[in-house]
Amino acid sequence: MGGMSTGTLVLLRHGESEWNAMNLFTGWVDVHLTDKGIAEGKRAGVLLAEHGVLPDISYTSLLRRAISTANFALDAADRHWIPVIRDWRLNERHYGALQGKNKAEIKDEFGEEQFMLWRRSYDTPPPPIEPGTKYSQDTDVRYADVDEVPLTECLKDVVERFIPYWEETISQDLLAGKTVLITAHGNSLRALVKHLDGISDEEIAGLNIPTGIPLRYDLDENLRPLNPGGTYLDPEAAAAGAAAVANQGAK
Amino acid sequence: MGGMSTGTLVLLRHGESEWNAMNLFTGWVDVHLTDKGIAEGKRAGVLLAEHGVLPDISYTSLLRRAISTANFALDAADRHWIPVIRDWRLNERHYGALQGKNKAEIKDEFGEEQFMLWRRSYDTPPPPIEPGTKYSQDTDVRYADVDEVPLTECLKDVVERFIPYWEETISQDLLAGKTVLITAHGNSLRALVKHLDGISDEEIAGLNIPTGIPLRYDLDENLRPLNPGGTYLDPEAAAAGAAAVANQGAK
Repeated sequence: MGGMSTGTLVLLRHGESEWNAMNLFTGWVDVHLTDKGIAEGKRAGVLLAEHGVLPDISYTSLLRRAISTANFALDAADRHWIPVIRDWRLNERHYGALQGKNKAEIKDEFGEEQFMLWRRSYDTPPPPIEPGTKYSQDTDVRYADVDEVPLTECLKDVVERFIPYWEETISQDLLAGKTVLITAHGNSLRALVKHLDGISDEEIAGLNIPTGIPLRYDLDENLRPLNPGGTYLDPEAAAAGAAAVANQGAK
Repeated sequence: MGGMSTGTLVLLRHGESEWNAMNLFTGWVDVHLTDKGIAEGKRAGVLLAEHGVLPDISYTSLLRRAISTANFALDAADRHWIPVIRDWRLNERHYGALQGKNKAEIKDEFGEEQFMLWRRSYDTPPPPIEPGTKYSQDTDVRYADVDEVPLTECLKDVVERFIPYWEETISQDLLAGKTVLITAHGNSLRALVKHLDGISDEEIAGLNIPTGIPLRYDLDENLRPLNPGGTYLDPEAAAAGAAAVANQGAK
């Protein structure tokens, strides 16, 4: 690439986790990948290699399902040796008191409208989780340096914690011409895509990101997408996966 | 720990690789772990958790077998989220023209004395590998920033590249009170143990480090071991493993 060119951004949503498979709200609860999720991670790495999209640096959240997905993907792409940065600002949205609850049961108990509001409203968080309970993270050592560990978050909260971090750190790597892999979560990636593509607070509700399929953004020198909406490395699988995400809670 | 206390160092030699299992000289060739090696990595993490030895930061070489071992160990110890630093200075000794060769065949061809000299002499490297050949690393992109990619190394060369890095980076984390995990290789760990325990150039030949068993060093404020020789978290398995390493080439 020439001296003025900007780097390539690759977004990767973690593969299926045990709680995805059980249809539970997960948020900041640190669950494992399923065997299917591990396979998705490896397949993502094969797609990166096949398309010659070779990350120079890897960013992940502090959650195992993203960390493991990145590990398996980078190993499969023969890029296991690149520098790694982990930060809580890439974490999934904190799902508050819904963490650990079954999506279908919550939908039945509170109704379709309230269910979709909690899942897709831009600025209405679920009720906060009780501190010190089984699925809260307020005493988790990995967040010891975080000023205020959230007890719940809406997508707006995720934007407000993630985008300043994006601008301070990840953007700088892209402006330096690097290919950056971000392995994160449905809602933290939606927050970033909203910012990159200038999607409104209303329209972001309809955007679903499938698991395990690398989404490439080519960015100009202002970090605006040259390919708005990005380019999935496997478009057919991405379309099927996004439909499956939209359908969650229906089980 | 109090304000004056120094951190804890944990050394971990990667689990069995495909080339360990095939009895080949590996060096900088980037081979995969076997299933047994993966199990060793996970078991190392269980040992860390059982002994309450919880790393705050993870250092690895740029080689897959160390990176994967650390990934599996940290996941099993629930410390997958800690910061990660990878550096080529932690790499295995470069085995020169022996890379990819069968250990038993080399022993038969060159005799026991020459074989042991290449394996255990402090300052006699094997013949250099031909640049640009299958098992050389002189054009590997991961070493693009290395001034002079080695074509062979003796243990003295490893000491000379690793110990300055140790003093500039890893030592600083220990002096700051952190628990540091170094996941690396038979000879890079021997280089460090030689330095820590003040072992002579002659005596280091007899030191073998088993795979997959965490070796803990408690260090004073000058980074001298309070427990010379370190403490294996599973001493019985370590003794059996070290004997197996010493016996290599006999197959």
